[in-house]
Amino acid sequence: MLDIKITLTNTPKEKPVDSPKMSFGKISTDHMFVMDYNPEQGWHDARIVPYAPFQLDPATVVFHYAQELFEGLKAYRTADNKIQLFRPECNGQRMIDSSERMCIPPVPVEDFVQAVKALVEVEKDWVPHSEGTSLYIRPFVIATDVGMGVHASHNYTFCIICFPSGAYYAEGIDPVPIYVEDEYIRAAPGLTGFTKCGGNYAASILAGELAARKGYAQVLWLDGVEKKYVEEVGAMNIMFKIDGKIYTAACEGTVLPGVTRRSCIELLRDWGYEVIEGKLAIETVMQAGRDGRLEEVFGTGTAAVVSPVKELNMKGESVYINDGKIGPLTQKLYDNLTGIQWGKIEDTKGWITPVCEG
Amino acid sequence: MLDIKITLTNTPKEKPVDSPKMSFGKISTDHMFVMDYNPEQGWHDARIVPYAPFQLDPATVVFHYAQELFEGLKAYRTADNKIQLFRPECNGQRMIDSSERMCIPPVPVEDFVQAVKALVEVEKDWVPHSEGTSLYIRPFVIATDVGMGVHASHNYTFCIICFPSGAYYAEGIDPVPIYVEDEYIRAAPGLTGFTKCGGNYAASILAGELAARKGYAQVLWLDGVEKKYVEEVGAMNIMFKIDGKIYTAACEGTVLPGVTRRSCIELLRDWGYEVIEGKLAIETVMQAGRDGRLEEVFGTGTAAVVSPVKELNMKGESVYINDGKIGPLTQKLYDNLTGIQWGKIEDTKGWITPVCEG
Repeated sequence: MLDIKITLTNTPKEKPVDSPKMSFGKISTDHMFVMDYNPEQGWHDARIVPYAPFQLDPATVVFHYAQELFEGLKAYRTADNKIQLFRPECNGQRMIDSSERMCIPPVPVEDFVQAVKALVEVEKDWVPHSEGTSLYIRPFVIATDVGMGVHASHNYTFCIICFPSGAYYAEGIDPVPIYVEDEYIRAAPGLTGFTKCGGNYAASILAGELAARKGYAQVLWLDGVEKKYVEEVGAMNIMFKIDGKIYTAACEGTVLPGVTRRSCIELLRDWGYEVIEGKLAIETVMQAGRDGRLEEVFGTGTAAVVSPVKELNMKGESVYINDGKIGPLTQKLYDNLTGIQWGKIEDTKGWITPVCEG
Repeated sequence: MLDIKITLTNTPKEKPVDSPKMSFGKISTDHMFVMDYNPEQGWHDARIVPYAPFQLDPATVVFHYAQELFEGLKAYRTADNKIQLFRPECNGQRMIDSSERMCIPPVPVEDFVQAVKALVEVEKDWVPHSEGTSLYIRPFVIATDVGMGVHASHNYTFCIICFPSGAYYAEGIDPVPIYVEDEYIRAAPGLTGFTKCGGNYAASILAGELAARKGYAQVLWLDGVEKKYVEEVGAMNIMFKIDGKIYTAACEGTVLPGVTRRSCIELLRDWGYEVIEGKLAIETVMQAGRDGRLEEVFGTGTAAVVSPVKELNMKGESVYINDGKIGPLTQKLYDNLTGIQWGKIEDTKGWITPVCEG
């Protein structure tokens, strides 16, 4: 149990206009949670303080060797004005898994959840009211040793910041075209694909930019060894419905274990669908597309919840999915997950963590 | 040609005791070079200013998505008190190559070299005099956009900082034992192995820590696809002398194109050695070790110049090299390269860039 010291700002910012069309992740709230680590005290000095810049020596490890990781989740306002979180303990556990790979001392799950809840409660007026909006929460850890020489830092800062964010689909759900990336990769066995470390994202930017120039919204990543099996799409997991069954890559080191991915799988199995987590060759997907058996394709992630795919382009050949429209199962997943998140559907799964009255 | 504005400090620090035993990369000098980038002005506002912390919003891209890269080189003081650099244009070109992969706007080589020279000239009194010492120079670029959402940043800072550093071998050259890493990898085709991006180093820390716990100084990285071919050692390139020939991994996307690596290859070829840049199976190396044909093994890098290896351990089996002593060719490379760097041997290769009188 953290002893969190709270110092409120004297100069609260003006909040943005509360609308589904608010930007994503641009306007930070008034406060942030900060906690420091050193070998003598462990994680210590947990505090909520006015949002302010970091002052960091230019020789700080994070600027040179990218020893850093993050998480992402949201706080939701329900119709009866409660503020709630969706499975924050999953983010806390994943941050521990990322920490171990990055040689960063782990923050216990209960401390992680306590810190998120405490900050959201302080910032509850920043959780927007408009349809589909939320407060995006970004926990992250950076290595703060000062000096050259590659090593696991001895000092760290864990910080949580928040951003009121508009609806992902303010204009309605619009399926996207995807480019199957066959040159660059995102991960390989023995690397860091299963973590939310910064380096994974830095390495992914180029392929995304090149795909965007060709008119594609995201890239579909293939495995790093054979470039044959599907793994993720952009910064989301991806699922394929073929002949009535759902296929998605297994989380075996190269694929991020998404909280939305896991939740979709649980719901799909509840509904009686067979979900296969394993190797799925891109050629199998493309052939299903050619044969008209590729019924639905969708990304899953915290930002979008689900992101339907309308086209897959590989080496110049495109297959099209469900006439460019969101499929019925994708829609059902979206409705159920967002229903639970915003409190419109009863949470029978124990996925909701209440924070406070709004 | 940069127009570099220079602002000198009013509070110069006390310099450390000038000795071969000075620490590496711990004590920064009085000034730093800084230059900013935005899409409107490109790289602009080149300046040398007193060394000072960065003030950065916690939502700055570099903390979350590790869009960052660095370089490393040294300034040397000669016996007749000149300050000089070793092939800084190679570092400048490599920084461009890293930049393109990381979607960071490149700094032209001539601007890079000018900035390094200008800073070293300002800090010339920080270039130590003792045998084997140098001024370590760390150019780096960080993405400075503020906000969530994975994208190529629009704003960047290019900074150069310096550290007076002791002799790498203050206690004499001591060959090291190496652990052949067969679980974790450093790179794979389609990723960022050829760049000096922070993410490569963050991903490498765990294997290094695990090897250290087993008593090994570094890990030998194998290729990311088959885990069969040698690539690098720790954060250095590595060379093997077998039956009189020199073998090292080719720089084809997964291996860092080291400046010391390249210089060693040029010298070795000048001296009539056959140098094979290509795939070398670890099993070939181990078998040569068993047969007594593994004559010399050494890492190459800016910090150590050459780092002789005395033992390779793979899956519990060790082979030993040259009875634990540095080999004659490794020693000759060390003597020649350090001779050129510190001005004891005439530079017939055009590798030296003079900076100023010391």
